[in-house]
Amino acid sequence: MAQNIYDTPAFFEGYQQLPRSVHGLDGAPEWPALRALVPPLQGLRVADLGCGLGWFCRWARTQGAQSVLGLDVSQLMLAKAQAFGADDAIAYVRADLEALALPSQSIDFAYSSLAFHYIEDIARLLATVHQALVPGGRLVFSIEHPVFMAPRAPGWHIDAQGRKSWPLDSYQAEGPRVTNWLAEGVVKQHRTLGTLLNTLVKAGFRIEHVQEWGPSDEQVAALPALAEERERPMMLLVAASR
Amino acid sequence: MAQNIYDTPAFFEGYQQLPRSVHGLDGAPEWPALRALVPPLQGLRVADLGCGLGWFCRWARTQGAQSVLGLDVSQLMLAKAQAFGADDAIAYVRADLEALALPSQSIDFAYSSLAFHYIEDIARLLATVHQALVPGGRLVFSIEHPVFMAPRAPGWHIDAQGRKSWPLDSYQAEGPRVTNWLAEGVVKQHRTLGTLLNTLVKAGFRIEHVQEWGPSDEQVAALPALAEERERPMMLLVAASR
Repeated sequence: MAQNIYDTPAFFEGYQQLPRSVHGLDGAPEWPALRALVPPLQGLRVADLGCGLGWFCRWARTQGAQSVLGLDVSQLMLAKAQAFGADDAIAYVRADLEALALPSQSIDFAYSSLAFHYIEDIARLLATVHQALVPGGRLVFSIEHPVFMAPRAPGWHIDAQGRKSWPLDSYQAEGPRVTNWLAEGVVKQHRTLGTLLNTLVKAGFRIEHVQEWGPSDEQVAALPALAEERERPMMLLVAASR
Repeated sequence: MAQNIYDTPAFFEGYQQLPRSVHGLDGAPEWPALRALVPPLQGLRVADLGCGLGWFCRWARTQGAQSVLGLDVSQLMLAKAQAFGADDAIAYVRADLEALALPSQSIDFAYSSLAFHYIEDIARLLATVHQALVPGGRLVFSIEHPVFMAPRAPGWHIDAQGRKSWPLDSYQAEGPRVTNWLAEGVVKQHRTLGTLLNTLVKAGFRIEHVQEWGPSDEQVAALPALAEERERPMMLLVAASR
């Protein structure tokens, strides 16, 4: 089973205080770009892989999704998601994405936000999602960008003029990266961008869109701290279809 | 017209002395990986965009290519390519890739090695190549990786332990990068990896393979200086099909 850091009290406590936990989708600066990749959901059967507090699940219902399957490994997350209120068309289900099984052609749209970088056997998961989608069905996901994940010492270098650069190294060394984010010893799985895309292709997906997210001018004007996200890509957004 | 740095005597002089100019394809460490993406060429009509000294054109003929169109903007390059010997099935033609025209469905396989990062209007060029390919035809190319191209000050940082990192910045700032490589004022066009792939998709290509090239263990053993290429991707290899 994948590390379940989200059920570590210190992690969950910190996670709950992130803007994206407090404010939901609109608290995530990449949401407008990610949303633009989501097809019209009216009448669709949707799965959210790593649904966390369920913000996307509930939003999908406001867009007319017929049913939403919210999957997460964290009991604390799912309990809080459920506390937002009952909706018979949303099923929050505890699941380890490393061992996920889904019925063939049972979903029309699959979504995942910042969960895939925790997955060790991403080939298995993507193959599972591919067979679970109907032909023409779409997968849209975000993941930490490999450039963000790769370095031995991820953190900005600031030069004498105050300009930031990101010290990239170890890019070709795929495998676990241990960081201290909200809690100590969070394990992420670094893969090159090429490996990720080729794994999608091998699973049978057609790559539709690849976006290395950066903030818009309006976003930087509203929140100047976001400017550093222009120096190196932190998140990767991908749309692929069966 | 694109900058024609290759006809600058100082640049051409330096370029001629590179291992890949002296030793041909086997002088390029990425060649084994790039070659693995090239389909069987027997009987195919091939185009090489930015053919330089014509090493790939001549190799394609040894693989049974029916005809090879070697396109380059540099007169010095083409003259030297032609000096390698006559082959009626190879046509070396001077062409500015920024303004290229090719007949519809006139080629079966398109190839390009380290030329596309000089191209400003890559959307135009990729659309031109797409319509020139037969349905099912493949495009294989290498390009400088955007992580290599982006920084204001591209060059290794070396820490107290002698370990190298690549100071990435300005990644989202697409546009020209001026460097001094073999000659002063060489202009390259930085685009994010996402933009490049999306431009392929928009041109109608299906993305088949994306490889951020790094050296193999055997290559590093034979040439230890290559080890640094594992720290950050320098080259990107792509296979796409019409």
